[in-house]
Amino acid sequence: MQHTPQRRRRAALALGAALIAGAIALPGTAAAVGQLALNQHGGAQRAAGDQTQAVRKAIKNANAKNVILLIGDGMGDSEITIARNYQYGAAGRLPGLDALPLTGSYTTYSLTKDGANKGKPDYVTDSAASGSAWATGTKTYDGAISVDIDGKPQQTLLELAKANGLRTGDVSTAEIQDATPAVQVAHVGSRSCYGPDTAACGTDALQNGGLGSISEQLLNARPDVTLGGGSASFQQTAKAGQYAGDTLFDQAEQRGYQVVSDAAGLQGVRKADQRQPLLGLFTPGNFPTRYAPTTATVGGADQAPVTCTPNPARLDTGLSLASLTNKSITLLDRGKNGKGFFLQVEGASIDKQDHAADACGQIGETIDFDEAVQAALAFAKKDGNTLVIATADHAHSSQIVDNTPPTSLSTALVTADGATMKVSYGTSGAGASQQHTGTQVRIAGFGPGAANVVGLTDQTDTFFTMSEALRLNGDLAALSRSARVDLSVGSPRPGQRVTVTGSKFAGDRQVRVQVGSTDLGTVDVIDGTASVQWKAVAGTATVTVTGVQSGKQAAKQVRVR
Amino acid sequence: MQHTPQRRRRAALALGAALIAGAIALPGTAAAVGQLALNQHGGAQRAAGDQTQAVRKAIKNANAKNVILLIGDGMGDSEITIARNYQYGAAGRLPGLDALPLTGSYTTYSLTKDGANKGKPDYVTDSAASGSAWATGTKTYDGAISVDIDGKPQQTLLELAKANGLRTGDVSTAEIQDATPAVQVAHVGSRSCYGPDTAACGTDALQNGGLGSISEQLLNARPDVTLGGGSASFQQTAKAGQYAGDTLFDQAEQRGYQVVSDAAGLQGVRKADQRQPLLGLFTPGNFPTRYAPTTATVGGADQAPVTCTPNPARLDTGLSLASLTNKSITLLDRGKNGKGFFLQVEGASIDKQDHAADACGQIGETIDFDEAVQAALAFAKKDGNTLVIATADHAHSSQIVDNTPPTSLSTALVTADGATMKVSYGTSGAGASQQHTGTQVRIAGFGPGAANVVGLTDQTDTFFTMSEALRLNGDLAALSRSARVDLSVGSPRPGQRVTVTGSKFAGDRQVRVQVGSTDLGTVDVIDGTASVQWKAVAGTATVTVTGVQSGKQAAKQVRVR
Repeated sequence: MQHTPQRRRRAALALGAALIAGAIALPGTAAAVGQLALNQHGGAQRAAGDQTQAVRKAIKNANAKNVILLIGDGMGDSEITIARNYQYGAAGRLPGLDALPLTGSYTTYSLTKDGANKGKPDYVTDSAASGSAWATGTKTYDGAISVDIDGKPQQTLLELAKANGLRTGDVSTAEIQDATPAVQVAHVGSRSCYGPDTAACGTDALQNGGLGSISEQLLNARPDVTLGGGSASFQQTAKAGQYAGDTLFDQAEQRGYQVVSDAAGLQGVRKADQRQPLLGLFTPGNFPTRYAPTTATVGGADQAPVTCTPNPARLDTGLSLASLTNKSITLLDRGKNGKGFFLQVEGASIDKQDHAADACGQIGETIDFDEAVQAALAFAKKDGNTLVIATADHAHSSQIVDNTPPTSLSTALVTADGATMKVSYGTSGAGASQQHTGTQVRIAGFGPGAANVVGLTDQTDTFFTMSEALRLNGDLAALSRSARVDLSVGSPRPGQRVTVTGSKFAGDRQVRVQVGSTDLGTVDVIDGTASVQWKAVAGTATVTVTGVQSGKQAAKQVRVR
Repeated sequence: MQHTPQRRRRAALALGAALIAGAIALPGTAAAVGQLALNQHGGAQRAAGDQTQAVRKAIKNANAKNVILLIGDGMGDSEITIARNYQYGAAGRLPGLDALPLTGSYTTYSLTKDGANKGKPDYVTDSAASGSAWATGTKTYDGAISVDIDGKPQQTLLELAKANGLRTGDVSTAEIQDATPAVQVAHVGSRSCYGPDTAACGTDALQNGGLGSISEQLLNARPDVTLGGGSASFQQTAKAGQYAGDTLFDQAEQRGYQVVSDAAGLQGVRKADQRQPLLGLFTPGNFPTRYAPTTATVGGADQAPVTCTPNPARLDTGLSLASLTNKSITLLDRGKNGKGFFLQVEGASIDKQDHAADACGQIGETIDFDEAVQAALAFAKKDGNTLVIATADHAHSSQIVDNTPPTSLSTALVTADGATMKVSYGTSGAGASQQHTGTQVRIAGFGPGAANVVGLTDQTDTFFTMSEALRLNGDLAALSRSARVDLSVGSPRPGQRVTVTGSKFAGDRQVRVQVGSTDLGTVDVIDGTASVQWKAVAGTATVTVTGVQSGKQAAKQVRVR
């Protein structure tokens, strides 16, 4: 256990006040002036005297320049406590999560999609519905990626941040198509719609007239920084649209993305913006975990307690979640004078290892996640205008128990205290996936707007907390209201190559360009601007540029002769 | 689901900002101006716009006149969420717990008493160690009632509050000897040391030279108000000391207590103070629960979902926890000019019904507890100088799950939403007691000093939060420093009856009176003063009054002739 000077000071003060004679004994002053042990009066305190002023000081006005949202997938209070106990001891503290000054709880329930209970609460959410809630402010059904219970797409915070001129980032230790990273960049009815080959895409598939798979919509969303796993889906080939026949990796490069696949490649990236967004996909599937797996068994907590060991398959530390967070911040931050950014960071495999009843797995991922929180917090403290929120999408199965449960899976661990902690997984049987649970979870924050996490909120409140802190304008038509079209040649001759440029389409991620009834295609908007080449044809026509997201049309007459 | 005007207003604003045209649909304005359904954008929000100012306003300077500490035994976040979902719906709110503006989490681990791990964390506490932690600021072992791991008594907040001139109250729905109420009034090595007949008392028994059973120490602690169950132990007979041979009820009456045993008796009590403290014990054991019990079974959540029904055995509503809380406040509060009070209120059977895998039982007790929180909060809001803290002593077994677990006990319930909630108990088998769990739990507060619950604290911090808010002086010797002794007759004659009065023994609950080497007995201190009759004996002697708790001695020479 660590003893900070503050802890010692407060403990000593308290002890001084509490010293008594007579029948009731108290620890002597010798202990008070030195380090107090956990069993001494005041020895287990975490706070350093009255915190009223510190909490008051932590409350900043609600406007932030940047927002970093960190999601520990499946990281309920139980998972946090298990990781703290193991890594730092029961009296220790997680240097990231436990340092966030403002705290509360939020509810995570989802909604029922169909049938007689349509629209009623579903008390245990999955990561898709919960992510959609904070990404869009709209509650939805399990499996939905930022569509409502009727399947209608809902604007995401990342999309809105981008439309408002902010840089954006989306980071995960999972496949980048996994629910949590997907909710910021895609709108599909089924979370398993990863790539163009996925049968589950149904009407969301491009070839079926939909918005496309999660991977394809990610390329449309065009965050400045996208880092994670899930390269396998990008090796699939588009089935429709202007990139039909190309792999998604080819498509990404055609659309200007810098694609990297390892730590060295990432290290070499010096800039990431709308012109050259960064797509780093470092594993075909999810990242390997920090700690090698443990296997809970029925009666397992009666076995000799285990110590977690490093996973030899773990990626280069340059690809740890903290490293990816730091790299993203470096690329997204434009310093004092530039506009801000929105970054979402997910520690994905707390959940996945909890599902697998793998105590070491979930602990290592929680520690990794905590390091990412530390990175975000360090930047935010330096920056002064950054809201950091760390929370979970839902709680999970693992529980700390005293005795080995008779029928549930369990594991015993040796903690940093040198004591044994028993962890139980009682929601499913051996070999089956442990279940999410429906309890409210912790949400904690730092910086401007963070006071909004205090008390009891709902997951959807977090969308409004972040969008209001960033003062995002959600009216895309208004953002594209000054849109216009220009031609590189005022009076072109037939056959001449003309550049058609739509500009000030801030509210749009793509525009569709037409000359008369001829479709020149759909083009990515880069910082409000999109250009396409046109080979002039004799006659008079109207050049129309239409914002795909805003619906805003800009038009110009052209006479070719 | 209730829609407050605030919720509607913020939702409408958010919607206005988010209205867009084009590919992404949003709910129409018709919904925005009326009530929003849960599935609409912003419809599930709990907050009414930016909360920064509201949170800032909730932070009061740290000095309080009164403290009301409410403990939901075993009421982890899961138990809170289960009760909210059932009684008010997932989007509803518990009018007490969810209204407390400042929130955080605290750690609850206890310590190992013996062996190689002595002093190391025990990751799952019981109610005795956890209660001792907030009652004394000292971590201890499971089973300990306000003694440290070496068995040394630790001063309790109730004792300190009384020594500082505050009124005190101790209320529970359990036997008043149960761990949570006991930690404020007794110091024993084993929580089961209820009465003089209890074999487990060992060296704590009066007859073995100890401080006595919990019931006997409660009479010594002499809170102004004590309300709960557990009358059975008071029918036992003291085995030693000045009340040997009397039942504890007889002893209580001899010592000035007003003893009541039903709602009518309680209603008749108009005043409770040190002269006439109130001891209301309404059941031989624990109170009956609000809802009739349900029985979880393996596969139970696959059965038809149940609705909780009232328990016909429930006590008169005049004896509900909220009623007891209100009555206590009325008796303890001395208004603007008087000194303040410390009141502890426990909802005990959330824990007991969780142990029994009884979902309706634990829900009803959580609702009952929430009503007590409402009562405390209503007073505190009116009073303006009262710190209210509501928390749990530890988390518990129950979890909300999506699917019926294969081997764990479970129950399905129909909630206020008209939907089915499945509750699982996976830490023990059928018929066995479900286990406490070791996760950090929610702590929430209102009023001066409540900011100290924000962030991560430990259970022991709560002792310091409360004692510092009340500015309690823990130095009993200093509190009794001006103690003196007076005799009713300056120069008595042999055989004359003389009243010996010790006064200004503020730091003491009892004094021992001696004339020369003759022991006149141990006497209760009432508001600093204790009197005893002495039949004067010829000669010169020293009359000595010694504070039992402070050790302070006051002496006077007397000559009898």
